[in-house]
Amino acid sequence: MTRKVGVIGQGHVGETLANNLLVTGTVDKLVLIDTNEKKLNANVTDFEDAAANLPTHTKVLRNDYGALGDADVVVIAVGDIGIQNDDAKHDRFMELKVNSRAAKEVGTKLKEVGFNGVLVSISNPCDVIAALFQKYTGLPKDQVIGTGTLLDTARLHKVVGQALNVDPRSVTGYALGEHGNSQFAAWSQVRVLGQNITDLAAASDDLDLDALAEATKAGGYTVFHGKLYTNFGIAAAALRLVTAILNDANIELPCSNFREEYGTYCGYPAIIGNGGVVKQLQLNLTPDEEKKLAKSANYIRTRFDETAQKLAAE
Amino acid sequence: MTRKVGVIGQGHVGETLANNLLVTGTVDKLVLIDTNEKKLNANVTDFEDAAANLPTHTKVLRNDYGALGDADVVVIAVGDIGIQNDDAKHDRFMELKVNSRAAKEVGTKLKEVGFNGVLVSISNPCDVIAALFQKYTGLPKDQVIGTGTLLDTARLHKVVGQALNVDPRSVTGYALGEHGNSQFAAWSQVRVLGQNITDLAAASDDLDLDALAEATKAGGYTVFHGKLYTNFGIAAAALRLVTAILNDANIELPCSNFREEYGTYCGYPAIIGNGGVVKQLQLNLTPDEEKKLAKSANYIRTRFDETAQKLAAE
Amino acid sequence: MTRKVGVIGQGHVGETLANNLLVTGTVDKLVLIDTNEKKLNANVTDFEDAAANLPTHTKVLRNDYGALGDADVVVIAVGDIGIQNDDAKHDRFMELKVNSRAAKEVGTKLKEVGFNGVLVSISNPCDVIAALFQKYTGLPKDQVIGTGTLLDTARLHKVVGQALNVDPRSVTGYALGEHGNSQFAAWSQVRVLGQNITDLAAASDDLDLDALAEATKAGGYTVFHGKLYTNFGIAAAALRLVTAILNDANIELPCSNFREEYGTYCGYPAIIGNGGVVKQLQLNLTPDEEKKLAKSANYIRTRFDETAQKLAAE
Amino acid sequence: MTRKVGVIGQGHVGETLANNLLVTGTVDKLVLIDTNEKKLNANVTDFEDAAANLPTHTKVLRNDYGALGDADVVVIAVGDIGIQNDDAKHDRFMELKVNSRAAKEVGTKLKEVGFNGVLVSISNPCDVIAALFQKYTGLPKDQVIGTGTLLDTARLHKVVGQALNVDPRSVTGYALGEHGNSQFAAWSQVRVLGQNITDLAAASDDLDLDALAEATKAGGYTVFHGKLYTNFGIAAAALRLVTAILNDANIELPCSNFREEYGTYCGYPAIIGNGGVVKQLQLNLTPDEEKKLAKSANYIRTRFDETAQKLAAE
Repeated sequence: MTRKVGVIGQGHVGETLANNLLVTGTVDKLVLIDTNEKKLNANVTDFEDAAANLPTHTKVLRNDYGALGDADVVVIAVGDIGIQNDDAKHDRFMELKVNSRAAKEVGTKLKEVGFNGVLVSISNPCDVIAALFQKYTGLPKDQVIGTGTLLDTARLHKVVGQALNVDPRSVTGYALGEHGNSQFAAWSQVRVLGQNITDLAAASDDLDLDALAEATKAGGYTVFHGKLYTNFGIAAAALRLVTAILNDANIELPCSNFREEYGTYCGYPAIIGNGGVVKQLQLNLTPDEEKKLAKSANYIRTRFDETAQKLAAE
Repeated sequence: MTRKVGVIGQGHVGETLANNLLVTGTVDKLVLIDTNEKKLNANVTDFEDAAANLPTHTKVLRNDYGALGDADVVVIAVGDIGIQNDDAKHDRFMELKVNSRAAKEVGTKLKEVGFNGVLVSISNPCDVIAALFQKYTGLPKDQVIGTGTLLDTARLHKVVGQALNVDPRSVTGYALGEHGNSQFAAWSQVRVLGQNITDLAAASDDLDLDALAEATKAGGYTVFHGKLYTNFGIAAAALRLVTAILNDANIELPCSNFREEYGTYCGYPAIIGNGGVVKQLQLNLTPDEEKKLAKSANYIRTRFDETAQKLAAE
Repeated sequence: MTRKVGVIGQGHVGETLANNLLVTGTVDKLVLIDTNEKKLNANVTDFEDAAANLPTHTKVLRNDYGALGDADVVVIAVGDIGIQNDDAKHDRFMELKVNSRAAKEVGTKLKEVGFNGVLVSISNPCDVIAALFQKYTGLPKDQVIGTGTLLDTARLHKVVGQALNVDPRSVTGYALGEHGNSQFAAWSQVRVLGQNITDLAAASDDLDLDALAEATKAGGYTVFHGKLYTNFGIAAAALRLVTAILNDANIELPCSNFREEYGTYCGYPAIIGNGGVVKQLQLNLTPDEEKKLAKSANYIRTRFDETAQKLAAE
Repeated sequence: MTRKVGVIGQGHVGETLANNLLVTGTVDKLVLIDTNEKKLNANVTDFEDAAANLPTHTKVLRNDYGALGDADVVVIAVGDIGIQNDDAKHDRFMELKVNSRAAKEVGTKLKEVGFNGVLVSISNPCDVIAALFQKYTGLPKDQVIGTGTLLDTARLHKVVGQALNVDPRSVTGYALGEHGNSQFAAWSQVRVLGQNITDLAAASDDLDLDALAEATKAGGYTVFHGKLYTNFGIAAAALRLVTAILNDANIELPCSNFREEYGTYCGYPAIIGNGGVVKQLQLNLTPDEEKKLAKSANYIRTRFDETAQKLAAE
């Protein structure tokens, strides 16, 4: 038994998550997979070089799909964010072509080895790729999750926290929808200092929610333009999600999960435990927020349909 | 009070160490410094985006030398390992020119702000750069340490552990001398499975110490050639060293410290606590090992003298 | 610098907190104090026997008030819960006589050694004893906190979480007032599953808030009657509070802090950081909740005044 | 999958271990068992009250033997150390009568539910009780371990560390034999500061090995006489052992394991991993140490034989 986790993709995000799992002693067996064997071997060797100086022990396996058959969680971190860099207008959908093919290939392999744990997909565009993994693994929808707006929500909590000099963990509420350009801060759900943030903003000259929403969305681009990738924020989000699944925590986390009413994956809070999505929340959003969410979900679904058709035709 | 640590340099090593410190909740205040402001801001933003998903809180400051005046530990991770890549014959001394100037500049600044904690230097060539930092900070020699052969020792423990199917943390003994080509495994000190490894090797057909020594030295190159830098192994070593200093652990760790008998910094075990080097070990090495160590130390001292002269003349 | 914490009192609660701090590697120096030297020495020896098997190192000092002069945090865990057992009607105020004298004696000593960190008081009756410590240490009110309703709030989150199959950490809201019989669950502030719990209860046949409130209050007694003391829940609460102070987390936690409008310490959420109470929340309670809180606060203030007078006369 | 651990017995040791496992987030499911339901319910409630303030989630089950069928590790902490107190001459064998019956009863139940993980026995007299559990569970000998001299070794490392101002984790070597009066420090195996301790002692006027051996043996009694039980040291030892098994660490730890040459369980270093004892060490002891070990082992075997006969006759 014990904890067994796979990470597929050893780029910036996958390797940082693997390191987080090792340094915190969260897993007992870690299966790392990448098509670039040279890079994979470099990382595995580097992780093995860390072992003697860490307090706990983790067995690291390399490129062994068979070992994922009985994994508790498999995290998808495939992708080449460098592709995004070719475009003047930064867009996570630049990665869609490459990552959708990876979803088909990797998803099919996971199905073949009988993987029946929880799949957590980070690869962009997050919501579409998570949906493709659900399709190709054939796993129940509850067992496939995208990190979705978990990172965007962390950014939202950060900007609110910075504005009010409060720890981001003391801010509640969510960024909803696509992990991408159509996401939005659902201000009706955000509470801080024991108040609805909309009440605080109404009573304050300084607290500008539009500016905070802008800062939340801009977060990733700031990081991206400074180093051409992002890794630490998303890896911390994935570490939390993986830990919640292993713990069977039944914790509330906003992430990309399949919403029946929209017929698509999108970022929305859910209760996360051993089986993945244990329960879905039903928020009382404002009409305006409902409209934004429907639009964002619609965009994801459209892109998913297009992509699924293309892949079927290949 | 509480724990305050600075990391100077936000390349692969410095950023991975910073992430390790944050993810494990080891420090309360983390001061990050880099001359590349764009990269630094990207990393600090990325770390701030992680905060909401981590169990503990760390305040991250950027490019604030003044904040290092009362730091407990400052870690030096300057350097551009890309330089090593230009040379057919890989050599950590390729970085000497750039890093020695950084040592003069950064060391002088640390002196100006009154830093009086423990300086841990990772930058290569490790032993020479540590010595230069001691010179330019003016700190007592006990308060300046290089990571030195702590990483090489971890690699030694790994290869021995893999050969005998034992956890690397259950192997004792050290790699000594330069963190570089002249280092060596001091087999007379290595024990595993309750035995001297030299006795085990004498009684075994499979256990080839020369091959293990080769594998130990080759470790870094394997990683380097696979991804053009190393970070996870060295960052775990630095995390352990920093924690030992903060804890005032008085733990035995092989690292680069000033050895009076050789008149130079070199990799040799010492007792590490709040004040840096609390006590130095005196090993009973074989005559052959003594010779290797003297040669390695002599090489470091010569390179230090040359470099110090050049810097003085600039 | 590094992290230095004192724990005064090595009964069930104080020793469990000390163990938590050691096992998690949260502190570098831990000063333990108890008038029962035999018990204290037994505990310190027992903690020293643990050291070789723990990943981190903590220096444990014994009965050294002088060492508290520069401590970051001092936790008060004096008291003899056995006293409560003598009474048919269980009441935390049974401990008042003994603990108020301890507050005068210990508080005065802390003042003498120049302690100027944050004092966290656990001893019962929590709100009155916290207030007495503020008086006798002469520390600013912001630097003296009682654990107050932090434990009761954890119990509230637990019973709500159990009722709805959700992790207690995914429930927000607070128990307010006295850490004692007059406390109450402020349902207007409780949110779970993205909803106000009052809305969920109105729409549900199963969710009985009165029963949950009763279960919250009864929590401590269940534990108490089963083993004649409580320790694990309160020690986890104190561990979190101490960590938040050391981290300078600025996290929102309900605890006993001085509320100007009531002229007394009582359980109410505040932002907690390095300086103790960094900011106080202002909740929009219902009129009924306001009344309950005023009554509870009034009770605490009356008991404090009586006790302070008695102590002044001794 | 994930990590599932059982702790049988919720006295001082069992409850402290349970708390350690919860506070460090080491396990996902924790099954607690005790015949005293009132005490058990008090502890489980107290642990549940801690959950909201801990960073990780652990599901706590109570008195559910069936849930142990697929546990990774079951720890035995039955016993009533109070019994030892009745005797003028303190002796762990005072507990034999009660604990041997518990071994038969609990061991039989574990067999019935199909437990096939690793059993770690703490209950005293440790070596005899571990052997009885092996007999009654019918588990392979490798899957049954006693904590044995792991605690005594920690005490040995502590006293050596204190004598030389070195962290106990930087002392190697072991206490061997019975976890009881016939144990001894195997000085020929103890190394510190890069030296054999026997060489250091020969060259020093201050280092008195006999006094250190005495202090090692006396450790438990000091704690016992101060509070009438010991818990923190042994719980830390058990936490380390459990973590090593869950991690499949293959780490070297001295503990009670079955030694063929003596036909009995006794304290001797072994390599510990997922399957329990993965490999046994073979030390080069001095003739005097061999004699002491044989005598200690013989004593354990004799007591085991007597006890097994009595239990068979009941």
